[in-house]
Amino acid sequence: RRGEMAKSTQLIDNEVFRAYATYAAIVLIKMMLMSLITAYFRITRKAFANPEDTESFGKGESAKKFLRTDPDVERARRGHLNDLENIVPFVGIGLLYALSGPDLSTALLHFRIFTGARILHTFAYLIPLPQPGRGLSWAVGYSVTFSMAYKVLKTAWLL
Amino acid sequence: RRGEMAKSTQLIDNEVFRAYATYAAIVLIKMMLMSLITAYFRITRKAFANPEDTESFGKGESAKKFLRTDPDVERARRGHLNDLENIVPFVGIGLLYALSGPDLSTALLHFRIFTGARILHTFAYLIPLPQPGRGLSWAVGYSVTFSMAYKVLKTAWLL
Amino acid sequence: RRGEMAKSTQLIDNEVFRAYATYAAIVLIKMMLMSLITAYFRITRKAFANPEDTESFGKGESAKKFLRTDPDVERARRGHLNDLENIVPFVGIGLLYALSGPDLSTALLHFRIFTGARILHTFAYLIPLPQPGRGLSWAVGYSVTFSMAYKVLKTAWLL
Repeated sequence: RRGEMAKSTQLIDNEVFRAYATYAAIVLIKMMLMSLITAYFRITRKAFANPEDTESFGKGESAKKFLRTDPDVERARRGHLNDLENIVPFVGIGLLYALSGPDLSTALLHFRIFTGARILHTFAYLIPLPQPGRGLSWAVGYSVTFSMAYKVLKTAWLL
Repeated sequence: RRGEMAKSTQLIDNEVFRAYATYAAIVLIKMMLMSLITAYFRITRKAFANPEDTESFGKGESAKKFLRTDPDVERARRGHLNDLENIVPFVGIGLLYALSGPDLSTALLHFRIFTGARILHTFAYLIPLPQPGRGLSWAVGYSVTFSMAYKVLKTAWLL
Repeated sequence: RRGEMAKSTQLIDNEVFRAYATYAAIVLIKMMLMSLITAYFRITRKAFANPEDTESFGKGESAKKFLRTDPDVERARRGHLNDLENIVPFVGIGLLYALSGPDLSTALLHFRIFTGARILHTFAYLIPLPQPGRGLSWAVGYSVTFSMAYKVLKTAWLL
């Protein structure tokens, strides 16, 4: 039991890994919050994708009119999909990066810039801010993930 | 070689990590099965997204009518996307949680409830069950992932 | 500091883990490149999803005509979503597989076949190649991930 605990906390005792765990959890929670934002717009705009979701708003024909798309719902959904496309590679490559032995300060710089950029991206998408606000925040996060991938491939390369 | 093997099996010898590996593999396989369900509906309902996919059903104009959306196909696709939005955060946060040194019984409770909730969610989506069946199963899985994220942030916090 | 470095490089010193890190980074980068391909088609085909993205192409009514879908954009987006549905399970299950103590040669075989299949899948989708080109490349990658999941469950099973 003791030995197991020691083993299980090995990674989490490493400072770079702790920083990774903190920022990965934060951006994954941020991504999950998009579900709540979509649900909020679906309910307030009365715009649903499934017939069974409209039943509390009326029966039969009167409920069918709520089976529709709404610009705010679609915008939140695009923001969510963009998170999947960008936060998932960050979490995967970031884990390998954290295990590749970077300096704590360099790692923190990567994690902080990515997290800040993705939070800005969400605001830029939902407000929405004029371009290139959203485009730039996307590009910053994208570049950080590429920078980490470069370090991973340089350290681990075994093809 | 021996030393490497010992290192490589370290994590997998830890009981919490073994439980995580088991449930993460199960929910990822469950998510992958959504592809087969979508393919089944595309073929039986003859509803495709790509012109090249319709060619075995006819040439030229007669094949074009199969380039269409179908309610069952779209329902399976929404279920698949909902899995991506919820199972991916579980797999990412669950890994960090498993490394944060939780009790085996607490960890098993989290993994089992999440896995059960997501299997129920799939049935609720595909049958479909009347609401709030699908909504509740979604909320249970969502809450489990948040509970694990709280433990990760409490243990690892290094901003 | 020294001790920490040693800990942090433990996994990355393992050859199977290094191979996993290399191929996982490659397929995640490949998936991220789909964003650039979609952006390329959105700009060259002038087909956007957000009003604020069309503003550099004209003001008011003249910009609205660029808020539309385009077959090439939609094709790139479907390829990207298919990557999310298949590469994400590979990265998750592949990590557990790499930690389950497989032979290096067996692991390399899995990683190489998956990576080759997904690169072929992207070409088959974008060119597009006649079926069953895309279907087969999808099935090969899918089977590799299942094979790894089988090994994970056999090694880790703790329900």
